[in-house]
Amino acid sequence: MTRDSYRTRRTFMGQLRMGADLYESISKICTEEDIKIGKVTALGAVTQAAVSYYDQKKKVYKPITFKKHLEILNCTGNVSLKDGKPFVHMHATFADSKGTAVGGHLTAGTVVFACELMIEELEGKALDRELDENTGLNLWGKQSILS
Amino acid sequence: MTRDSYRTRRTFMGQLRMGADLYESISKICTEEDIKIGKVTALGAVTQAAVSYYDQKKKVYKPITFKKHLEILNCTGNVSLKDGKPFVHMHATFADSKGTAVGGHLTAGTVVFACELMIEELEGKALDRELDENTGLNLWGKQSILS
Amino acid sequence: MTRDSYRTRRTFMGQLRMGADLYESISKICTEEDIKIGKVTALGAVTQAAVSYYDQKKKVYKPITFKKHLEILNCTGNVSLKDGKPFVHMHATFADSKGTAVGGHLTAGTVVFACELMIEELEGKALDRELDENTGLNLWGKQSILS
Repeated sequence: MTRDSYRTRRTFMGQLRMGADLYESISKICTEEDIKIGKVTALGAVTQAAVSYYDQKKKVYKPITFKKHLEILNCTGNVSLKDGKPFVHMHATFADSKGTAVGGHLTAGTVVFACELMIEELEGKALDRELDENTGLNLWGKQSILS
Repeated sequence: MTRDSYRTRRTFMGQLRMGADLYESISKICTEEDIKIGKVTALGAVTQAAVSYYDQKKKVYKPITFKKHLEILNCTGNVSLKDGKPFVHMHATFADSKGTAVGGHLTAGTVVFACELMIEELEGKALDRELDENTGLNLWGKQSILS
Repeated sequence: MTRDSYRTRRTFMGQLRMGADLYESISKICTEEDIKIGKVTALGAVTQAAVSYYDQKKKVYKPITFKKHLEILNCTGNVSLKDGKPFVHMHATFADSKGTAVGGHLTAGTVVFACELMIEELEGKALDRELDENTGLNLWGKQSILS
């Protein structure tokens, strides 16, 4: 098996505005900078969080909203292509005032209080999402299977 | 104190097959690509999770299994050597259908539903695991202490 | 909008001593190596954890301490400058013996049992923290807003 490898390219580091939508803002930056492949990490706090849980049997995303102020414990994901355009996929973990952790697949609706962001662009073969019938998810093609 | 530093080398990015063992698959890729040192990040969902918690007094790992469908909120770790061969060490956080987060030291037994993986290979001085009597864990040698 | 980008520089990888303060040790390494900008990731276990939750209305950090042995599920953050000196900002997720996850903004008081650390230094324009009156937090200046 031959696996393609990638090299590091630009890294962007900076903050998001208070009130910004976390997911939409990251998507906008990746689109504007034309980042075709890379890794994203965010740190900070939000005034509310919106994630989803994928029901593997019904093959649908179930939205979960946390309407409270939360720390972003971790928010990590990737950028690749969908319909030829930059597409961001991230999962996030949040903590409330007692430290209790919750999370899921990050969606629009998560509102930034303060957020420090790092986007690590790579260069190499494009990964383009397409519907995978097995899972019902938009996954990279079969040629991207590493094992 | 002089600390060795590492440079970035190849980055692998791709997916794992549905039904694959998360830990074993990552280990297999690192072995086949002969990745001696690096960083690993995984994102996705699993049909069940197997982790462990280290009992620091008894110096034994206690297995914890979650027999349900879960999102991988975060799964981050490193690759180094053990007995001269690539060895993967990762910790994982998962969320259930309510967003509740759980996790531990990733072990074999975690089954992939969908998984997007990034392995960032480094180059530089090897780190080889050996039994550390203080903790009962296989840690890198004393020369690897940064502080 | 023109966004500055960064390039990868040195990566440090190694362990922290048992009994070390997790936050203070990472700060010390970044200071000694004069790391002005970068990313930090830690993995391991602690004998107790100290984090905080930012009260967004009162604009104060509320300390939360977990006096038990915990796995570090994830501990990710950045290095930038504050008053011209390296300053570390990290958030951490921990799990107890049942796998239950908790976390927050990492503070001094988290004691290492075993810890594997990676510090990825970048090079490029400095990011210096200053009081942001809107949030009450020490954030990078307005020129660092990515979106």
